Amino acid sequence: MYDLLKGLRIVEGAAFIAGPSCTLHMAQMGAEVIRFDNIGGGPDYQRWPLASARDHSASLYWEGLNKGKKSIALDLSRPEGRELALALAAAPGDNAGLFVTNYPARSFLSHAALAARRADIVSIRIMGWADGTPGVDYTINAAAGIPTMTGPVDADRPTNHVLPAWDLLAGAYAAFVAISAIHRRSLTGEGAEIRLPLSDVAAASLSHLGQVAEVLLHGDRPRMGNELYGAFGRDFLCADGTRLIVVAITSRQWTGLVMSLGLAEAVAAIEAETGAQFERDEGARFQHRHRLFPLVEKAMALRNADDLGAAFDAAGATWGRYQTLGEAVSKDARFVSGNPIFEPVRHPSGHSYPTAGAAATLVAENRAAVPRAPRLGEHTDQLLADLLGLSNGEIGALHDAGLIA
Amino acid sequence: MYDLLKGLRIVEGAAFIAGPSCTLHMAQMGAEVIRFDNIGGGPDYQRWPLASARDHSASLYWEGLNKGKKSIALDLSRPEGRELALALAAAPGDNAGLFVTNYPARSFLSHAALAARRADIVSIRIMGWADGTPGVDYTINAAAGIPTMTGPVDADRPTNHVLPAWDLLAGAYAAFVAISAIHRRSLTGEGAEIRLPLSDVAAASLSHLGQVAEVLLHGDRPRMGNELYGAFGRDFLCADGTRLIVVAITSRQWTGLVMSLGLAEAVAAIEAETGAQFERDEGARFQHRHRLFPLVEKAMALRNADDLGAAFDAAGATWGRYQTLGEAVSKDARFVSGNPIFEPVRHPSGHSYPTAGAAATLVAENRAAVPRAPRLGEHTDQLLADLLGLSNGEIGALHDAGLIA
Repeated sequence: MYDLLKGLRIVEGAAFIAGPSCTLHMAQMGAEVIRFDNIGGGPDYQRWPLASARDHSASLYWEGLNKGKKSIALDLSRPEGRELALALAAAPGDNAGLFVTNYPARSFLSHAALAARRADIVSIRIMGWADGTPGVDYTINAAAGIPTMTGPVDADRPTNHVLPAWDLLAGAYAAFVAISAIHRRSLTGEGAEIRLPLSDVAAASLSHLGQVAEVLLHGDRPRMGNELYGAFGRDFLCADGTRLIVVAITSRQWTGLVMSLGLAEAVAAIEAETGAQFERDEGARFQHRHRLFPLVEKAMALRNADDLGAAFDAAGATWGRYQTLGEAVSKDARFVSGNPIFEPVRHPSGHSYPTAGAAATLVAENRAAVPRAPRLGEHTDQLLADLLGLSNGEIGALHDAGLIA
Repeated sequence: MYDLLKGLRIVEGAAFIAGPSCTLHMAQMGAEVIRFDNIGGGPDYQRWPLASARDHSASLYWEGLNKGKKSIALDLSRPEGRELALALAAAPGDNAGLFVTNYPARSFLSHAALAARRADIVSIRIMGWADGTPGVDYTINAAAGIPTMTGPVDADRPTNHVLPAWDLLAGAYAAFVAISAIHRRSLTGEGAEIRLPLSDVAAASLSHLGQVAEVLLHGDRPRMGNELYGAFGRDFLCADGTRLIVVAITSRQWTGLVMSLGLAEAVAAIEAETGAQFERDEGARFQHRHRLFPLVEKAMALRNADDLGAAFDAAGATWGRYQTLGEAVSKDARFVSGNPIFEPVRHPSGHSYPTAGAAATLVAENRAAVPRAPRLGEHTDQLLADLLGLSNGEIGALHDAGLIA
């Protein structure tokens, strides 16, 4: 945890990945994040992976996405519970008044309802489709065409991604937009109503990458299996059965690869024959990839992965080992076990395991301890007293009425 | 373009996706972004997709990622050109002094070199691996284990992703961290040296999703093809040959699916037999998916996609059509053609095509026109005059010396 957002308070009424990861990023930069949930937990409270196969085992997903937040549990089905959620989200204070949600726009937590209480509220609402049609990462991904480009060339069906890339991207981008709105508010006093549909995250990203233009000018890009589009890259098998990915996008990456595999002469022969200039033209490496791949295949098949990796590193080639996540965690010290962004943390599940703080490192600044996730409702009483000024008696009455937990 | 970051000036010395998308997000929120490049263009200046197959055709990728930025071209191989880059990056002004780069930490554009000129500089450096080892999106992805989880269950090799998810995520997250550092600087006057390795973006994300904990407690998750982990979801074939994805994570999504397909009785029979409670327990839908999938398969195989889609929408089920990007762009008005975040823009390639502004929408605020990408060096003279105070004569001399273009 760093202190870039120290003093800022954010209220979250959200579930799953995009909203909770947005505020997790803020918490890891020092903001106070208050997540409210229905009593018993929101729709993501039992999301897999779980700590064990037992029924009602703690969700590792939930405790991963809610680290360092404060938790308040309310009965959101009753007006009195909803009133508490609204009062929290629109609580006064220069450093408060930022609300992150994935509730429908017409819910009781609408921007209008919040703005009626606090004119300078900044609300950011993450949605499926922009028109309000339900959509989740995986359905948006299907609609955006990614699964038809992914996977084996001869596959007779699309290939879903397993990484919820649009959710993660929406979460980080939402954090950027929200803090940008706070920046403006600090200068002008203005609030903002922000909507961020996953569908627009996908459409804008593919526009930014030139792919919307490409498809309009040239039609759909064919499925190419593991081959990198527009430059040199693919998986290759080593003598010991290990598979490595090798990528050469820049000139340096290409010359490093050619040199480390001793392919200068063979590559020069293809250049002489085709007129291609592979060092300066990454696109030529792609156009002639079916001439180049066999050279690299043969050279790599003769050597073991460790030997190749050392040669690639020495020559400045860019490569990676395909490993399972288990191998990455247990054997590749750079990833988790020797990575200073991770610390062992004991979570509400009862398990202690290496847990990541912020992905960004602020050089020479103090990376405070990674906090655990809260227990559901752990901060209910404290927050109602501190932020809404409720007395012990009032809080007790709310408990008795089953409105808070 | 919106005005959340109006007045802020960012200098970019970067290439490819993560750095340029970081500052693109800032430009789309109203910041002035100045990208400097070597004369003739950086290593991404000819990155595919290109506008046409002709040699030296404009890069649609480059013009997608650099929309609305200003471009200055310098000879970075000579001390005088490097001096200009440093002077720009560390130029004075309360709203300046934010530098985004993917140059190596020990380059002439090190944080120390910048801080020597401007103590409150905020620099953010996007890297491959945290230790400085080269890595790109695709090699980091291989190391993080995603390709071993993706693709057909019986595949004998990993499946690369085609969406550069880590690059995109790093870009958005970098924008968040950078603006957070600007927030702190506005309060305390302190600068920041920020490093963001793609490897840590990947490791932290998999920690946040609970997957690092999962692999430590339970071992590697097996490859499951198109099946959604931990709930109900997969691709299904309709009577007309269309393939739809159906996802049921929440109770409402599940009951919507069951109702719309008329499966209540059949599902109840499996519940009676197994003791599972599918409505309240998404994990049970996953554990018993091989009982549930055939029911949905049979029901969907009898009906056409349009009919099913209407029934799903009416019942609140969550689904998507697998379409190619070409189909998404030409036939699905929600994605591009009827999407208000897109506008036709004529770019330096000479082509005019729908181009996305910010993915986020600020309700009731003016979405100013989407600007085109600059021509390389389009703003060289103007920026040297305005920001570094060079005279016409001095600028002319730099041109004559081949130091700027």
